[in-house]
Amino acid sequence: MHYKAPVHEMQFLLDNVFQAGDLWQTMPELAEMVDMDTAMAILDEGARITHELVAPLNRSGDEEGVGFANGVVTTPKGYKEAYATFAESGWVGLGGEPEFGGMGMPKMLGVLFDEMCYGASNAFALYSSLTAGAALCIASHGSDELKQRYLPMLYSGQWSGAMDMTEPQAGSDLRHIRTKAVPQEDGSYRVSGTKIFITGGDHDLTENVIHLVLAKLPDAPGGSRGLSLFLVPKFEVADDGSVGGPNGVECGSVEHKMGIKASATCVINFNDAKGYLVGQVNRGLAAMFTMMNYERLSIGIQGLGCAEAGYQMARDYALERKQGQGSGQGLGNGADPIIVHGDVRRMLMQIAAMTEAGRALAVLTGQSLDKQKHLKDAQADDLVGLLVPLAKAFFTDTGLESSVAAQQVFGGHGYVRETGVEQLVRDVRIAQIYEGTNGIQALDLLGRKVLPRDAAMLKTLIAMVEADLAETGAEWADQAQLVRQAFGQLLDAAGEFRSRERMGDAVNAAAVDYLHAMGYATYGYLWLKMVNAAERDQASLDGAFVTRKQAIAKFYFARLFPRFHAHLASARASEQAVMALSVDQF
Amino acid sequence: MHYKAPVHEMQFLLDNVFQAGDLWQTMPELAEMVDMDTAMAILDEGARITHELVAPLNRSGDEEGVGFANGVVTTPKGYKEAYATFAESGWVGLGGEPEFGGMGMPKMLGVLFDEMCYGASNAFALYSSLTAGAALCIASHGSDELKQRYLPMLYSGQWSGAMDMTEPQAGSDLRHIRTKAVPQEDGSYRVSGTKIFITGGDHDLTENVIHLVLAKLPDAPGGSRGLSLFLVPKFEVADDGSVGGPNGVECGSVEHKMGIKASATCVINFNDAKGYLVGQVNRGLAAMFTMMNYERLSIGIQGLGCAEAGYQMARDYALERKQGQGSGQGLGNGADPIIVHGDVRRMLMQIAAMTEAGRALAVLTGQSLDKQKHLKDAQADDLVGLLVPLAKAFFTDTGLESSVAAQQVFGGHGYVRETGVEQLVRDVRIAQIYEGTNGIQALDLLGRKVLPRDAAMLKTLIAMVEADLAETGAEWADQAQLVRQAFGQLLDAAGEFRSRERMGDAVNAAAVDYLHAMGYATYGYLWLKMVNAAERDQASLDGAFVTRKQAIAKFYFARLFPRFHAHLASARASEQAVMALSVDQF
Repeated sequence: MHYKAPVHEMQFLLDNVFQAGDLWQTMPELAEMVDMDTAMAILDEGARITHELVAPLNRSGDEEGVGFANGVVTTPKGYKEAYATFAESGWVGLGGEPEFGGMGMPKMLGVLFDEMCYGASNAFALYSSLTAGAALCIASHGSDELKQRYLPMLYSGQWSGAMDMTEPQAGSDLRHIRTKAVPQEDGSYRVSGTKIFITGGDHDLTENVIHLVLAKLPDAPGGSRGLSLFLVPKFEVADDGSVGGPNGVECGSVEHKMGIKASATCVINFNDAKGYLVGQVNRGLAAMFTMMNYERLSIGIQGLGCAEAGYQMARDYALERKQGQGSGQGLGNGADPIIVHGDVRRMLMQIAAMTEAGRALAVLTGQSLDKQKHLKDAQADDLVGLLVPLAKAFFTDTGLESSVAAQQVFGGHGYVRETGVEQLVRDVRIAQIYEGTNGIQALDLLGRKVLPRDAAMLKTLIAMVEADLAETGAEWADQAQLVRQAFGQLLDAAGEFRSRERMGDAVNAAAVDYLHAMGYATYGYLWLKMVNAAERDQASLDGAFVTRKQAIAKFYFARLFPRFHAHLASARASEQAVMALSVDQF
Repeated sequence: MHYKAPVHEMQFLLDNVFQAGDLWQTMPELAEMVDMDTAMAILDEGARITHELVAPLNRSGDEEGVGFANGVVTTPKGYKEAYATFAESGWVGLGGEPEFGGMGMPKMLGVLFDEMCYGASNAFALYSSLTAGAALCIASHGSDELKQRYLPMLYSGQWSGAMDMTEPQAGSDLRHIRTKAVPQEDGSYRVSGTKIFITGGDHDLTENVIHLVLAKLPDAPGGSRGLSLFLVPKFEVADDGSVGGPNGVECGSVEHKMGIKASATCVINFNDAKGYLVGQVNRGLAAMFTMMNYERLSIGIQGLGCAEAGYQMARDYALERKQGQGSGQGLGNGADPIIVHGDVRRMLMQIAAMTEAGRALAVLTGQSLDKQKHLKDAQADDLVGLLVPLAKAFFTDTGLESSVAAQQVFGGHGYVRETGVEQLVRDVRIAQIYEGTNGIQALDLLGRKVLPRDAAMLKTLIAMVEADLAETGAEWADQAQLVRQAFGQLLDAAGEFRSRERMGDAVNAAAVDYLHAMGYATYGYLWLKMVNAAERDQASLDGAFVTRKQAIAKFYFARLFPRFHAHLASARASEQAVMALSVDQF
């Protein structure tokens, strides 16, 4: 009963909802490389490898966890061989630059493959996700020399990547970073310091681990402007590209965690390690943000993958588990499968409604990233700015909710380890925390994206929503009106924040609820967009598929959309409600 | 940094909000036994023992878990000694019948001590909670002989109790139970069968384990009317009360679970075990419900205890952890503690608002149980019927939310095991599942309590709410009106369900959201009741305590009460939204 990627759902999104084939034809770098047939062949093969190779390692990896002895990190049984197979098939370089050995596939496709990987195994997926993110950062900001030396090895999965930001005293606020980088005569740097919570910071899957490390030069100015980014390999890399001796990069310990136990979360000590500047001096944070934005979307998709995996497990259990009688649905003599019960259906419908809209948001975000990269589209810049923090936080907050709901369908059997669904809950929980807590994402969304420039980014999103809703059929006019009103209220609320006396506190206190309100509004828009596509293309779609989309859309508006109003009302409340207590009254 | 019971908050509830001392004087069995001074002495001592004795075992118990080898279950290091001390102090028999060695204390007090136990350690608390529940069931339904033989040993904690209901094919629907009980000539029975998920089903804390087992007589009618309840000791008990040889009760295995790892969750095999009928033949379910109602409230309080423990951990962390700068609150040079941030405060305020209202609901439920028992009060019957399933499900659903919020305050440090907050999330999760899943609680609330008799039980609750809200000051008139309207809408919605064509599906699909709506309405009422008491008694209360209550009440109405409307709208939606899909469309 291992995870199987919902390829048919993915095809519907790419082909019918977002008409990706037509879009790719407008992008010079993609037109010759990818069409819908290619895309579907990639997704089919991705579904196969995640089902057959990755998913079977998920539970054993959780039971065994990573090992750490004598400074050496070992991954669970089977990981090394599976990762080698995974890498050899080119999956790590799926979105990488063709010039350096990547496959150059669009992000619209990449987000769907990411979902498959996380759905099959959170812990396994993280190793390749971090590597792809590191490669993206090097491709965007590294010198030609660094690109030529490191990108092919990262894309091929022979080396892996890690992102080294957090220090014991510097988590959400990176200004407190103490790691030092001292310039050397040969143009390299010597990096010293301690980083914590480094995902994939050390392991035995690859022959080298390439760290991207935020550090300060000796003469750096204070605050975040003083951070520079360095590429620091675990083992030295010679001019001919061969791997040499140790480079002063040591794993001090691995964390014992609630979940993702097969993912090595390391304390990494840099002791005069040789490093190479990525991007410009004192502009490290900007360079790192390239990787962080990539990772933030990826980590959002972790929440989505868990929700889909939870749906599959809960649905299969609900179809098999017999309990109770006399539902009137007449599914057989004796006890009925629990799927006949309204409350069980409510939970399954809820997971499906959130997951399918979430997948649409992932593809929309991927599409915006593709337009940004290949078409230099200014509208896409606005959408990326809004949708990345929204996706990261909303996918993972609701991914926990969906995973908990899936566990609840199992009753007592969901609490014991053998059914595997409790692992989902433990694994997905980290996604609300790392790559910037969801509170940080919400502050980014409201404070840095929505409010500046008279809400220009939000207006871009609203213009797209309005244009798409114009195609909505009469049967869905009420729902379309709800969505329009919701976005209007989000815009009104944004205006209100600017007039608050204590605007900083107001934004800080309201941000998470504002983000959730925007999430429910956006999912409403996406359900209508999906229904429009399904009804428009119903001649070529399976009839049950179309009625299913219509039913889940109706469920969404009847049962989940009302949350929009609760979150918006909460976000609009005076900041005084949150800030009234003195510190000693807590 | 171990859990400390919030005794001052508890005193406020008993003394100011519910004026327990006056109430106890009206109850003949309690008037001579307990007053506020006695109650506070008990709470102070309870706070001491849970802080000093129980809480220190919580994390080590999680790390070690229960052992199982050669059929023997062993609890973690320190549990046996601590349990002996706990029992010797009389805590297991706190609410027990004085005639048989119990302390006879009111449930209003018992719920507060339960909260302390769960706050200190979920796993530890379960052993005594199950024992007290089993004793209650024997006291209510057992013969005089059973009472005399078993109650003193259960109250003293020398023996423990377990509740044996679930079988592999019979979880939420007990009609499928297969365990058999064959009558013997001496009036006893021979019980055979397998029970699963038996909390505290076997362990090394006590010299005997007394099982209350649901089973069927050979000639029992089908369905739930064919279930009888039997007392089956692990070791035989001789006529003189001494413990004899094995009685055919064996632990087959212990579950490996997400949390409560120090609580033994057992498969129990009964092999011709000697048992004694409790209550009447074929009326076992009714007898078991006495225990289940007790346990349901207790398990609800598990959610509350975890939320309070989470609050304490998150608050302490937020006061200590430094990150970020320039809050304007001027708490010192350099980095500020994270409690200055609006989003951190939002999380702490949310936990506090839900936990303090929850504690008030626990005391109200305890008060209703006391009135039912000691005053044979019909209004109290109605309130008990409504409030027990509400408390069980709402405390635990929001207990998970609060524990997750507490973990979120810790950032990455909340995901690693050493800080202990992730254990809370794993431990509290079971409380939404066992003792009847929260879906079952919601069905009970809406289908069996709210809808029958033209919503008579709900009308009783509303009459109490109206009477108390009449005392609300002008400053809180808007909030009081919101609460009145909310209860009116709950009553309207109940009327609507009775007119639904497919009422069974409608109730099943709506129940959980209806329960949550009632929860938020009830917490609104209780916040006003608390504010009324604090303002009325402000001369005798600390000023900061009163302003704190006012601030959290305002937070509750501004930031959390809007959820009432989302849940009610969701509950009122047509059942068609949930039931539209055919089984093969999932």
